[in-house]
Amino acid sequence: MADELVQVPAREARAVRVASGGRFRVIDVEGGQVVDLFAFAADDVGEYASAEHTRIWVNRLFPRVGEAFVTNRRRPILWLERDDSPGVHDMLCAACDPTRYRLLGVGGWHASCQENLQGAMAALGHDRVEIPQPINLFMNIPVRDGGELGWEPAPTRAGDSVTLRAETDCIVVVSACPQDIVPINHNNPTPIAVELL
Amino acid sequence: MADELVQVPAREARAVRVASGGRFRVIDVEGGQVVDLFAFAADDVGEYASAEHTRIWVNRLFPRVGEAFVTNRRRPILWLERDDSPGVHDMLCAACDPTRYRLLGVGGWHASCQENLQGAMAALGHDRVEIPQPINLFMNIPVRDGGELGWEPAPTRAGDSVTLRAETDCIVVVSACPQDIVPINHNNPTPIAVELL
Repeated sequence: MADELVQVPAREARAVRVASGGRFRVIDVEGGQVVDLFAFAADDVGEYASAEHTRIWVNRLFPRVGEAFVTNRRRPILWLERDDSPGVHDMLCAACDPTRYRLLGVGGWHASCQENLQGAMAALGHDRVEIPQPINLFMNIPVRDGGELGWEPAPTRAGDSVTLRAETDCIVVVSACPQDIVPINHNNPTPIAVELL
Repeated sequence: MADELVQVPAREARAVRVASGGRFRVIDVEGGQVVDLFAFAADDVGEYASAEHTRIWVNRLFPRVGEAFVTNRRRPILWLERDDSPGVHDMLCAACDPTRYRLLGVGGWHASCQENLQGAMAALGHDRVEIPQPINLFMNIPVRDGGELGWEPAPTRAGDSVTLRAETDCIVVVSACPQDIVPINHNNPTPIAVELL
């Protein structure tokens, strides 16, 4: 079977089902684009990839290649198998949401990773899910002296990617972050793609 | 009315209701003790103090005095009014739970901040709550070069405290962390106290 490529238009999200052992590549198609990635256990979406449990599991702010993301029940759910990007990722920042954009001064509706997640999960019959802290691939949030956070543009180039492997059957939601007020996406949200390997 | 002092025995937790505008002091009675603190909106426990939203709100890993902890709906819920401690706190690490102790090699049951939280909330009629990333007062988790996390003993001395003010009616759960395998509590969990001001 040919590999399947799921195109995720700028500012949108897609959900993909990945079976235990399945591998997938998240691709920054044009470069400079943040991906908010969420992973839920397929048989119980109350179990999901958890930033605060993963930090303890790997003893660092973000896993290295060969390490796992674990769930809120401390079970590996995704393995970071390969990183063909500058290796700059974030697991400190909440998904953007309608309130975030209102607070940033946006008047009307603005697409957000939270609504993207909710829409993608609702389409699979999960109308109400907890909103986990996302795995923010390619997001450049340096931790400066004294714990101050920076908001820097994603350093990726076109075609950069991260390859993940599922430890368990899961639903992965991938959102092409619509943030265009702070410069994490160079103020120009672009598409991403997910290649199921 | 005299100030009320709530004693929290070592390895246990207590819930306190704090009205909007109410102030309380969390006291490390003997020193060297981590406190896992959770805050839920009293009228909807689906809204709670959120580490990942607070980091964005204050642009740093932990609020400074005068700054707020915000909820998963990006509303201030607690203000860090005063810090009479070395000022070392954590908001990166999940609450300890039964699985954490099993993974650390503990054979039988071990008290945990997660079960403490669940018990305290159940006693108030909230049988099922999301387990938020806690506000870990006095917890010493340095972020080293490359994002590595340290696990250091709490640097507090007897009587050190933090004073918080509620922005909204809330339920605050305070757990005297039972962790005695990794050295964050000097391998000797001790009591804490909450003074309602």
